[in-house]
Order: sequence, then C-alpha cells, then structure tokens
Amino acid sequence: MKGVILATNPAARLVDITHEIPGQDIADAAFTLLAAYREFSPGTIHLSVVDPGVGSPRRPILICSRDYFFVGPDNGIFSYIMEREKDVRVFALTNREYFREPLSNTFHGRDIFAPVAAALSTGVSPRNLGNEIDDPVQLESLKPTSLKNGDVAGRVIHIDRFGNCVTSFTPGDLHREQIGKGLSLKLKGKAIKQFRNFYSEQDTKGDDLFAIWGSAGFLEVAACNGSAADRVKAKIGDRVVISSQQSAISSQ
Amino acid sequence: MKGVILATNPAARLVDITHEIPGQDIADAAFTLLAAYREFSPGTIHLSVVDPGVGSPRRPILICSRDYFFVGPDNGIFSYIMEREKDVRVFALTNREYFREPLSNTFHGRDIFAPVAAALSTGVSPRNLGNEIDDPVQLESLKPTSLKNGDVAGRVIHIDRFGNCVTSFTPGDLHREQIGKGLSLKLKGKAIKQFRNFYSEQDTKGDDLFAIWGSAGFLEVAACNGSAADRVKAKIGDRVVISSQQSAISSQ
Amino acid sequence: MKGVILATNPAARLVDITHEIPGQDIADAAFTLLAAYREFSPGTIHLSVVDPGVGSPRRPILICSRDYFFVGPDNGIFSYIMEREKDVRVFALTNREYFREPLSNTFHGRDIFAPVAAALSTGVSPRNLGNEIDDPVQLESLKPTSLKNGDVAGRVIHIDRFGNCVTSFTPGDLHREQIGKGLSLKLKGKAIKQFRNFYSEQDTKGDDLFAIWGSAGFLEVAACNGSAADRVKAKIGDRVVISSQQSAISSQ
Repeated sequence: MKGVILATNPAARLVDITHEIPGQDIADAAFTLLAAYREFSPGTIHLSVVDPGVGSPRRPILICSRDYFFVGPDNGIFSYIMEREKDVRVFALTNREYFREPLSNTFHGRDIFAPVAAALSTGVSPRNLGNEIDDPVQLESLKPTSLKNGDVAGRVIHIDRFGNCVTSFTPGDLHREQIGKGLSLKLKGKAIKQFRNFYSEQDTKGDDLFAIWGSAGFLEVAACNGSAADRVKAKIGDRVVISSQQSAISSQ
Repeated sequence: MKGVILATNPAARLVDITHEIPGQDIADAAFTLLAAYREFSPGTIHLSVVDPGVGSPRRPILICSRDYFFVGPDNGIFSYIMEREKDVRVFALTNREYFREPLSNTFHGRDIFAPVAAALSTGVSPRNLGNEIDDPVQLESLKPTSLKNGDVAGRVIHIDRFGNCVTSFTPGDLHREQIGKGLSLKLKGKAIKQFRNFYSEQDTKGDDLFAIWGSAGFLEVAACNGSAADRVKAKIGDRVVISSQQSAISSQ
Repeated sequence: MKGVILATNPAARLVDITHEIPGQDIADAAFTLLAAYREFSPGTIHLSVVDPGVGSPRRPILICSRDYFFVGPDNGIFSYIMEREKDVRVFALTNREYFREPLSNTFHGRDIFAPVAAALSTGVSPRNLGNEIDDPVQLESLKPTSLKNGDVAGRVIHIDRFGNCVTSFTPGDLHREQIGKGLSLKLKGKAIKQFRNFYSEQDTKGDDLFAIWGSAGFLEVAACNGSAADRVKAKIGDRVVISSQQSAISSQ
C-alpha cells in the first residue's frame, strides 16, 4: 500500500497509526480511528483497511468531513466517525480509472484504497472518484440506552494492550458528581464501585477493578497491575451497565 | 538502522514493509519481499535483514535489477527476486570504507546493510561497493515439479496473519479452466476441492477449507472464519500437491 | 502522538524505534533507547513513553545532552543515558503553554511529551519549557558490583525477540583475554562456559548456552537455535555473576 501511494505521489506523508487491530475486528478499528483522527491536521486522508468482505459486493467508500477524508470499505469502520462528525458526505468509489490494475479480489487496500488515497492527496476531487450515497453501513450506535429499571446500558468498544476495557460511556452520559460517588458499573456480572483519577492512584477500597476516564474520552474499566479484560473475561461488544438510585443520565 | 541511514542521507525516504518476519525465517522474508517490491518506484533500495549467519563467512550482497537495488545477507533472502527478475547483477559487499565502524559480528543490518543502502541512496556506484559475483545462495525454486503419476508438487511459501497458507502455485502452473472444477489440492493429507473467488464467498459445499488466488499472485489455502494453517497444522515448506485426471500443468 | 507533532511541525521527521516494549517495563525501554540513540544525527529529539505513573505527581522531564534531547516521564527511563552522557541538564516540564489542552491524566505521551517534542523541533528553548532540576529518578546503575568472594555481579537488562539475555557487562568490565578462556558466567544457577564470536559459530563443547558480545556493546547469554531466556527462565533484572580465579574486573 505504501509503495502504491508513493509511486503516485512521492511527496505524500505516510503515518502509521496502528497495524495491530485484531483480525477482522471492524469495531475495534472504528474505535481506534475515532481515538486518533482529530489529532491530525485538516486535510489529512485517513486510510483504514479491516476488510473481511474484500472482493464481495461490499462497496469501497470515501467519506468527506469538514476537515478530513476517510477511505476504506463500507462495513461500518467509519461509522463512529460519522456519528460524531457533522455534514459528512459519503461517496461509493466506482471510478476504476483510479484503481490499480489488475484489480484483485483479495487486497483492495493495495488495489483501491491506497491508489484512491494517493489520488486525493494530489488534488483529485471526490466527485471524480465515484457517486454520492446516503446509506453507508453503520455499526450499533455508541449512545447508551436507558433500561426500564432506570439503569443505563453501554458496551465495551475496545480493549487496549494493557487489558483496560474501554466502554462507550462518555462524560455527557453521566452526572459529573456521580463519578467517584454513587457510580456503580457492571461488567460481566462484576460490580465496579471504585473510581480513579489516574491508573496508579492508591487503591483505598481493597478492590482491584476500577473505573477511569481514558484518553479517548470514554470511561474505562481497569485493574491494578493486571488486565481487567482477563480478570472478567471481557471482550469487545460486552454489555456494561450503570446502576444508580438517581438518574444516571446527564440532564444537559 | 534508521539512524545510520539518516545520519548519512537526511533526505532518505524510509518505508517499513514489515518487522514481523518470524525469527530466522529466510524463506518467509523472501516471499514477503517478492510480494511487495514491485509496488515501489524504480530506484527504490530494498533492505532486508533476516540474518541468522551474521558474523560468519556468509557474504553481504547487493543485487541490482533493472529497476531496484536489494541489500542484505547472501542467504537466499533475495532468491525469489532473482528467479523473477531478468538481467540481475550481484555484488559481494567488500569495501569496508562504506561500513559503520566498529563493525560488529552481531548486527550487520546496522553496520553494513544500512550504511551501504544509505551510500547507494546518495549515488555511490555498486562497483565501488564490492565485486561482482555469480554464485549467490539460492533457495529451492518456486517452480512446481511434475511427479511420475502426473500430479504436480509445490509447497507452502508463506502463512499470513490470518493463517492462510500461500502456496508456490501461480496461474501459469494451472489450466485456468481447472480452477473451481477439477482442481484437487492436497496439503498435509487433506484434500481441498473448493475454490473461491473471494474470502467471504458463500460456502456451498459444506467444506471449510478452500483455495483462492491471493494478492501476491499465488494460490492460497484458506479456511472459513479461521486459520487454515492451524486446521491442518501447516508450516512453511510443507508440500502441496495438485492432482488431476487431466494434465494440471498449463500448456502455455 | 504523531498527529500532535505534525500539527505543530509539519516538517518534523518521525522515526519509530520500537512499539514493542513490554507493558510498563521502564528498564527495558531504558536499554532500548541506550542501544539506539547514538546512531541518530545530533539534534535528534528522543521521545520515550513507558509511563505507568501517568497522571500521578511523577514529573514530565526533558534532558539535554551535548547532542540530543530526551523527552518523557521522570521514572528512570533516561537513567542509562544519564549514566553514559556527560554534562547533562535536566528540566521539569512545567510550562503548560506547550501542553495539549485538555490535559488528560491518562495519556501524557499525547498531551505533554509529543507537543513539547514538537516545540523543541521548532526551536523553542528548554528554558522556556520548565525549570532545571538535579534529582531525576535513576534506575539501579549498570555498573557491575564486586562481591566479597571476588566474583562480579551484574544483571539482565534486556531480553530480545530471540530470547537472548543482554547483561549489564561491558568490555571494560572484563579482561579481554578472559573472554573465551577463564570466563564463567552464571545465570539462574546455570554456568555458561562457552564464548562465541558470532551466533552461528560451531558449538564445539556440547553445551547449548553461550556468551557473546551483543550489538549494543553488552555481553549476552544466547542459546543454539533457541531462546536462552526460556531455557533458564530468565527475566529482566535477574542477577548474572562472573566467576574467575583471577580478578574478573579490568584494571583499565
């Protein structure tokens, strides 16, 4: 992919965000991109390839937000971006003129996404690359849902290399004053009642699992000197529930 | 290695292809290079270091093809390139003037290959780096061999991160019309009779292993939602046999 | 982190040394940096983030040696550098003007170290980034210690991907003539009596563990076709002892 881009645009600046997404894990790639994309300068082209459907009728797409381009398969990999960004336009990449030939059925990263990203970097207009569409594939929303008993349900959206379980809860989903007080988080049947401000903060309650605000802006479940994911056998997609006597949803 | 190159040529463009070759696996490195090198612009210097014989009398070499340079140990790592490229010239790197000092016995990537690659990138001629040779080390050829019973034997040349087993068979080794019809591939005693056009294509035969043309141009053995390598306990070098009533070798 | 740096200084040259330090292993990061930093051109800014204390009162620091800058947490990660370099100045990074906002408690790589490195790369003076300090955190010294019985004790400071155990012994710690002769190295109760000049050198003594000078200038314990670390169950920090009838410490 890098060779293809540089052959078209030798001045392209290539930055690797990660090559460690677990195989075929579209949701994990969607989170990773969400956590990183806004640190880059406006005009950056984000190229993401976790593509189990390569060669099938799934569409190759381009998404244009106010500041960025996103190129990759239409399988939900960009849906967290679309959930956050306003005024997004989505294009199905149909103009084979910008594809590598021969076009394989097994590596569109090299044959479609990289050459299209290179074309964008040289100033080719999205309109020349394909047709605008309005039905891109979406993963389940990151928004928590309210349960009948007043609890609020979210899910694990990422597990980092330390085993910290990133949940879909953001500060807007919680009363600020709840954090560290009435907060009770449940993951895999285990209640997490402790909140920490930083990972190595003193454990004062004799419990080894705690909640913490992670760097991507989501609430995490972490463990003292170990992997929270291993401890509760958590995986991406697992449900996380916030219980509270008072309403747990922010009134903002 | 990157520091050494940039200290000599601050304008050098560095591109990482991979750092995930299994330890000491020369054949896997040879395949990986074969799969990637032609995507890069003419003039690219390919630097490859899988070098279990570092410090021994094995030679450091430079290979010049029409479009590319290849720098690394003379252990077969470039032999698939040499099998494919025409008019290749090979040089033993003997001019210590271009080596890093002190020269270690344990890391020629840093002490010989990186500084030589940097020298090439600044325009130093191959003739100044050493003497032309005609006996570089070669791995077993990628060409399949015909067996007495009419079968054709190849081998596993790479196992990717998904467990797909890349074989040494190319389209030229098979009748096009055989693929998906009379094709019967045997790997580790297991017959693979199904062919797919893309990984997620519907399984219509109730069998979980299938053959597919991979992105590097070789036939792969893959598994539905799993690792083919794990399923048949395959490793690099394992024999793969194509059986057929008709001749399995293309008449082209 | 890369996005943050490039947003401040689009001309910055980014070079990845490694992303494979075991989680929270400060000593391993300290070794890796020590092994690589001097290959880079003067003026290079080395940014290192293994930071289990992120968000705690541990200080963010900048170290200025004659040729290089080092940015990261004050947890000992730079202490091997400080042990080797002369005339080092250390600054606590206190000027929030150069931090990313909002400042998290969980990712100072992105919020402090990357923006400070970017600022340095654009010419901001260390004096503007914080106050000079004289008490940076230091790991245990790399210098071997003499034992009462005349033996000399060092430790394992790194285990590479092949399982080679890098010790803290350098050529200055040994009589040159001892190597390959009277050398007896003990690691985890196992005596290593063989010395090799290169990894694949012929084993003539029927023993599968051997000592060898590694590329970073330290004595290593390695194994024939296998992992020395696995064979003796070594880990970073394990004691290594050199025994000798004669004094084992160089008189230089």
